[in-house]
Amino acid sequence: MSAFEHLHLDIPKNGKQRIIIIGGGFGGIQLAKTLKGSAYQIVMFDRHNYHTFQPLLYQVATAGLEPDSIAGALRQLFETHDEFYFRMARVTGIDFEEKLVKTLVGELEYDLLVIANGSKTNYFGDKKLHERTFPLKRIPQALDLRSHMLQNFEQTVMAPDIEEKDRLTNFVIVGGGPTGVEVAGALGELKKHVLPKDYPDIDFNIMNLHLVDAGDRVLAGMSEKSSEKALKYLDAFDVNVRLKTRVQEYNGKDVVLSDGTVIPAKTVIWAAGVTGNLIDGIPEEQIAGGRIKVNAFNQVDGVDGVYALGDIALIATEENPRGHPMLAPVAMQQAQNLGKNLKKGDKASWKPFAYKDKGSMATIGRNKAVVDLPKFHFGGFFAWCVWMFVHLMSIIGFRNRLVVLSNWIWNYFTYDRGTRLIIRTFYRKKNFKPSDSL
Amino acid sequence: MSAFEHLHLDIPKNGKQRIIIIGGGFGGIQLAKTLKGSAYQIVMFDRHNYHTFQPLLYQVATAGLEPDSIAGALRQLFETHDEFYFRMARVTGIDFEEKLVKTLVGELEYDLLVIANGSKTNYFGDKKLHERTFPLKRIPQALDLRSHMLQNFEQTVMAPDIEEKDRLTNFVIVGGGPTGVEVAGALGELKKHVLPKDYPDIDFNIMNLHLVDAGDRVLAGMSEKSSEKALKYLDAFDVNVRLKTRVQEYNGKDVVLSDGTVIPAKTVIWAAGVTGNLIDGIPEEQIAGGRIKVNAFNQVDGVDGVYALGDIALIATEENPRGHPMLAPVAMQQAQNLGKNLKKGDKASWKPFAYKDKGSMATIGRNKAVVDLPKFHFGGFFAWCVWMFVHLMSIIGFRNRLVVLSNWIWNYFTYDRGTRLIIRTFYRKKNFKPSDSL
Repeated sequence: MSAFEHLHLDIPKNGKQRIIIIGGGFGGIQLAKTLKGSAYQIVMFDRHNYHTFQPLLYQVATAGLEPDSIAGALRQLFETHDEFYFRMARVTGIDFEEKLVKTLVGELEYDLLVIANGSKTNYFGDKKLHERTFPLKRIPQALDLRSHMLQNFEQTVMAPDIEEKDRLTNFVIVGGGPTGVEVAGALGELKKHVLPKDYPDIDFNIMNLHLVDAGDRVLAGMSEKSSEKALKYLDAFDVNVRLKTRVQEYNGKDVVLSDGTVIPAKTVIWAAGVTGNLIDGIPEEQIAGGRIKVNAFNQVDGVDGVYALGDIALIATEENPRGHPMLAPVAMQQAQNLGKNLKKGDKASWKPFAYKDKGSMATIGRNKAVVDLPKFHFGGFFAWCVWMFVHLMSIIGFRNRLVVLSNWIWNYFTYDRGTRLIIRTFYRKKNFKPSDSL
Repeated sequence: MSAFEHLHLDIPKNGKQRIIIIGGGFGGIQLAKTLKGSAYQIVMFDRHNYHTFQPLLYQVATAGLEPDSIAGALRQLFETHDEFYFRMARVTGIDFEEKLVKTLVGELEYDLLVIANGSKTNYFGDKKLHERTFPLKRIPQALDLRSHMLQNFEQTVMAPDIEEKDRLTNFVIVGGGPTGVEVAGALGELKKHVLPKDYPDIDFNIMNLHLVDAGDRVLAGMSEKSSEKALKYLDAFDVNVRLKTRVQEYNGKDVVLSDGTVIPAKTVIWAAGVTGNLIDGIPEEQIAGGRIKVNAFNQVDGVDGVYALGDIALIATEENPRGHPMLAPVAMQQAQNLGKNLKKGDKASWKPFAYKDKGSMATIGRNKAVVDLPKFHFGGFFAWCVWMFVHLMSIIGFRNRLVVLSNWIWNYFTYDRGTRLIIRTFYRKKNFKPSDSL
């Protein structure tokens, strides 16, 4: 079956209780860090050997950063931890009865299990959209979008007519959340400042950016003031924001919107939502809205010794039946709380999770951002500086911070993007063949 | 046939003579630069949208640099040139009679043609070696080798027995030229300084590096003193140098050498030689040793208005029947000479090409290099500094120089490699499927 079945997961327990953490995202990493020096043995599974700083993925996709600057090798993060074992292996299932995690390279028993494998792009069951649009959740996806975009401009130069040129240069971004807004802003910047220098043969007036959202405002998770400001900023970048609108159909060439509009576009970026990255073996009664139901201690309802946290976990209360927003700070705070609880022997002393919302923000290209703090909101250049500072400080690893900062400085002053190479990556898209390359 | 046949290459000639340059390597770029401001229209074809600084490819393969720092977007190089047209398209043939270049997106007429598409890895006709070993001529190949190597270490941790661990961690490098020696040195450094921190579960004594060469010394193109020094440096990195030896057979698991030795190894790096990147349509009488025969003016023998330069071109003389070495300085000097000649109207005033050998060098890991100048040779730390300075100055683009320099400083002082992410790229290897990833 698998090319890896001769491999195994024999890890000696060395007389310790074993915690298996599924996923090396914000939650998984924070948990392992919090548990450093504890009596537990930690085994972490991830299908990548690196952590992805997802908030900056859109800059990889728009040729602003290379992947190495927003990713950190997971092994390196835990070099100084004792009894920490990283295994790069895709988890295929969980068996709560036998206390087993199943992977492509075999099974491993756990004493405690923490499911922290985050979320994936939500196509709401539409297979065609899944095959034909570009998601933006993982590094190979971001690189694929970047190469696709640049390849389209190379083709535009050689396209036979204005219709084809239009189709190749138009972008439809679906979803007006932070990812959608930030991609739209970055593309607006590319159109205005970067691409015309590279492609003097292209008239960039034909390049149109469309941001489609079903709701009545962009950045619906933020304050109304921030939504208004973001809309104004998007307008300044010539982004056509189409609210209360959905994508009806997409055949790879033309996008049909719910209001009947047809937009010719070879690139549709799907940022319309995410859903829990569910694993086989989780009983249906423990799932709600694509996430795993957990109590205030992040314990999976009714399953002893099994926890879930971050995007995949749902702490539903009467006041808040849809749980916490699927954001990095929630995952990290839950991980910290769970880690501290696990370090205590006595469950009676465990603290329930309480989310501290420190605010949210989004950037819309050069000099433009919006910031919501619990007490007040602001936008513009200062918000943009705050956005950069907070993101820079959140990136894991000193080297990565340096690389990102120097790239930002370079890009800002030169109106240049250093990383516009077309290099296709292996990617799950069914209809993509290497021969699709020019 | 092609997915791009609706595209076209209609470029208005604007009353100018058109020179088509095939290839954006060292030669092609230098030629276009030399012709800046001339009366010609320049059309450049390349299948990549970037120039590759091949001397540092091995650092991309060994996780020392990201591709963006050794590659430069071709369009950006010529932003300030008038009547310069870049077209990203694979050239499939040439028709000397009709004066046509054929590509995947159609044909284009030329007045003058310069073939400068370099060389490719030479497997000497062995299809199995072609499929099963890793070449090192292009960026996707370097990224593929890097991911393969890191994936092997991830698998080593989970391998069932010492034999499999040995096979996963062994490297056989075929070819003792600069590429082979530099890769061997870089792998020696990884083994000694970088990998043991990441993989505490692996005993790196099982990791063996073998450098196989058919000749009687490494760096055969350099002085005997440099060969001896390089051998000593390789020894310090525990590289087993096997001279007067060839690879007899490789089944993907075990390498059989000509002396009967069998080395279990899942990674064989093929740096045993290159051959001209010949294009369909070049008559056989114009080809010798895989290269195109040209006269001292780089004109293809007997074909008016067609030139070849760099690795693909062979200026054979009685004293030097095998032509010039296939090196960047030769290509650049030929391009400069040809460019200057083309700018002169009168062919009588054309100057024949004369190669100025400024010396050669190779590095073998941290603090160790050898340099041959026309008058004297030296090695060690000072040679290593010279190697770094010369390479840094040869990289195209100020940004790239900065990025490479800062990476080198970081890697030197931290014994770290910032770029060890496993990201598979699309690649011509027939037997590779995305499912090969863990």
